[in-house]
Amino acid sequence: MKVCKFGGSSLADGKNYEHAVNIIKSDPERRVIVTSAPGKRHNGDIKVTDLLIKYANAILAGQDGQTIVDEIFARYQAIGAYFGVLEKDVEEIKEILLALPKKDYPSADYLMAAFKAHGERLNARLMAIVLNHLGIKARFVDAKEAGIVVTGRPDDATVAAETYDNLARIKLRDDERLIFPGFFGYTPAGNIATFARGGSDITGAILARGLHADVYENFTDVDAIFAANPAIVKDPAPIKTMTFREMRELSSAGFSVLQNEALLPAIQGNVKINVKNTAHPDLPGTMVVSENGFHPTSTITGIAGGPNFAALYLHKYLQNKEVGSTLRILNILKRHNLRYEHMPSGIDDVTIIFNKDELQGDVVDQVCNEIQAEIQPDRLEFYGNYALLEVVGEGMAEKPGVSAAILSALAKENIYVPMINKGASKISIMLGINKKDFNKAVQVVYQRFFK
Amino acid sequence: MKVCKFGGSSLADGKNYEHAVNIIKSDPERRVIVTSAPGKRHNGDIKVTDLLIKYANAILAGQDGQTIVDEIFARYQAIGAYFGVLEKDVEEIKEILLALPKKDYPSADYLMAAFKAHGERLNARLMAIVLNHLGIKARFVDAKEAGIVVTGRPDDATVAAETYDNLARIKLRDDERLIFPGFFGYTPAGNIATFARGGSDITGAILARGLHADVYENFTDVDAIFAANPAIVKDPAPIKTMTFREMRELSSAGFSVLQNEALLPAIQGNVKINVKNTAHPDLPGTMVVSENGFHPTSTITGIAGGPNFAALYLHKYLQNKEVGSTLRILNILKRHNLRYEHMPSGIDDVTIIFNKDELQGDVVDQVCNEIQAEIQPDRLEFYGNYALLEVVGEGMAEKPGVSAAILSALAKENIYVPMINKGASKISIMLGINKKDFNKAVQVVYQRFFK
Repeated sequence: MKVCKFGGSSLADGKNYEHAVNIIKSDPERRVIVTSAPGKRHNGDIKVTDLLIKYANAILAGQDGQTIVDEIFARYQAIGAYFGVLEKDVEEIKEILLALPKKDYPSADYLMAAFKAHGERLNARLMAIVLNHLGIKARFVDAKEAGIVVTGRPDDATVAAETYDNLARIKLRDDERLIFPGFFGYTPAGNIATFARGGSDITGAILARGLHADVYENFTDVDAIFAANPAIVKDPAPIKTMTFREMRELSSAGFSVLQNEALLPAIQGNVKINVKNTAHPDLPGTMVVSENGFHPTSTITGIAGGPNFAALYLHKYLQNKEVGSTLRILNILKRHNLRYEHMPSGIDDVTIIFNKDELQGDVVDQVCNEIQAEIQPDRLEFYGNYALLEVVGEGMAEKPGVSAAILSALAKENIYVPMINKGASKISIMLGINKKDFNKAVQVVYQRFFK
Repeated sequence: MKVCKFGGSSLADGKNYEHAVNIIKSDPERRVIVTSAPGKRHNGDIKVTDLLIKYANAILAGQDGQTIVDEIFARYQAIGAYFGVLEKDVEEIKEILLALPKKDYPSADYLMAAFKAHGERLNARLMAIVLNHLGIKARFVDAKEAGIVVTGRPDDATVAAETYDNLARIKLRDDERLIFPGFFGYTPAGNIATFARGGSDITGAILARGLHADVYENFTDVDAIFAANPAIVKDPAPIKTMTFREMRELSSAGFSVLQNEALLPAIQGNVKINVKNTAHPDLPGTMVVSENGFHPTSTITGIAGGPNFAALYLHKYLQNKEVGSTLRILNILKRHNLRYEHMPSGIDDVTIIFNKDELQGDVVDQVCNEIQAEIQPDRLEFYGNYALLEVVGEGMAEKPGVSAAILSALAKENIYVPMINKGASKISIMLGINKKDFNKAVQVVYQRFFK
């Protein structure tokens, strides 16, 4: 049995929907379908999720949001019309949209989460309508009926363990496809809470684990996961097979094809993931598998990273005489709920590397002030133009010379590498470089290992 | 004005003492002398400090220690005799030794500290006696008279800031050398507390700063600080000039010529340090200077490290989603007062590197148990055969290709480098390797940069 998740661009309009429908039709093993919200149909288009955010904000501002409802409904209606579905058969979608503001929400955040979730929720309903219209028996299963229970923040929820007990009770029948909305679950109190953005991937993985799928097919708009960003490297090699932990490292470091947190249920259930292109379902795509029994065929699997980082450098003489020095720094970061990426530490020096997205408002100044007051470093410097380059590969583990080859390739191009972090994970090396060198660095490392 | 500190081997017997005396005599600028305790005269000999520890243990065990006193006194007496000092003129040394057990000590640790400190204290007295006997006007100045105030542990004290106010009141006269004992100070309550082992270097640096010396001459038993350990690399290059922070990095990583903590007062007072050989005072030795205005003439200054490390590896999926994950690990380490050397961290992985000397008793098991209980990692592994290689040089900063050159040299010898830590300090790179590769690694990096 296969769980198939379709991304937003794969369900953006009737034509794309048709690809998805054909994919579902073509394999009777594809019995569990997970929908995203309709994405952009063309450059400059608005995703349905963003329309729903507008709708929520209108309601929160005391407006009626009628025109936005019309705009949202038109998106679903157009897809239905593409398949010849009668307007009366999709009318319920409009009614649900109009009823949304009338429900009770414990807070504005929960209202926002519920509105956003309807991009997926209504698309799953529509998919069931379309499939049944085309003679393919299908049933919409809401996240509540499925028993997807979540806890945590309304916009960054975590799946609760009981979800898997609930999913175990779902009966699959050979003659019926089940259509689940991605992206959200219900709190124990019955409120909708969403996963992080891109969270339909997470729902798919949860279902794949909970329903014991043989494979989790993740249909998106690229032929495969590539060894490097195609915006930087021309025609990069597709990755045929990679391990869960390679995917995890790469997706943390900027590979956005698969939602980062979607891997955990797949790992726990040991369900392999097949990333495929909705437009070219005949291509093999990328298979993500367990590292147990995996034999790497190349040294490097992928090159990730990004130019959006910053570093805080701190020097204090005899810092390492105090056991609690780094601890005090971490406590300051925790007080500000500030997540960091890496923290290379030396005898008297610490560098803390942040994703710039984490550095909102004047948090850098605040943290610097507190470090100054509590730790009194001899030097405290902030670097705003940091890029991180992460090179990942199961083939690196225990193999001498890989770091040397990467650094030599960069040195040949005169790229200075102020930071190297290797050793936590055996299958990756993380380099800090100047933002201006980032694209060149990705290119030369790619050239070195893939040409 | 120069502050001259003589190490234990430089004052081990009459012949070595004579070198020191000649050094003092030959330069009228050498007006402040700091003594260590007499060291080993030959392989298999016992240092006076170790005899004093034996003496203290005998007293603590309720014995009288008379034979050990005779043995200790014989060492000082023999040096006096070498210069023709009459026995009655050194008799006070024996009296002081015999009086030691009769004093009050707040604890066994303070008794031990006071006994140990007398290796230096009596040697400073003897030096004053010898110099005066030879017609060189000299005066013994006890740490109490000098006002060296310390706080902290009795065997690992820290100098108090008021010391520098006290030292500022000392008047130096052109016609008189002042002889200070190294290694210890007095607590505010009047008890002797020592610095860490090798702490005479610290006293010398404190005096050099407090008395505004032009240079702090540190006389020891090597011609210079070498770019690599002579026990591993044959005839390594002497380092002519290096910066304080290079010395700090190298001494933290195993260069034992200069006591690690001795650098701080020198840096604070901006007093350059000249490490010289008592046996060859004509050689220039190694000059350690401020990094301000320093222009490196080579890429690498020194290669340090050692084979005595261990690593704890921890993997927990989605570890980085929690801000406080590393914090919890550090709290566990702090609870056990366990100092670590480095902690490379990745997305879901942390490696913590310890000096094995820190891992006493069953502390590793205890820490692992607590990490298991509090953090529940997916993997927790301990590696006992870790070596650290540290390559240091002001010439590395901002220079592309240095890491590449180091790693390529190692790769050529098929040495696998599981850990690389670069970026906290700009002037060093730290590599983790297998213990078995350590000597070879030092040799090939040395060959690469110094041949």
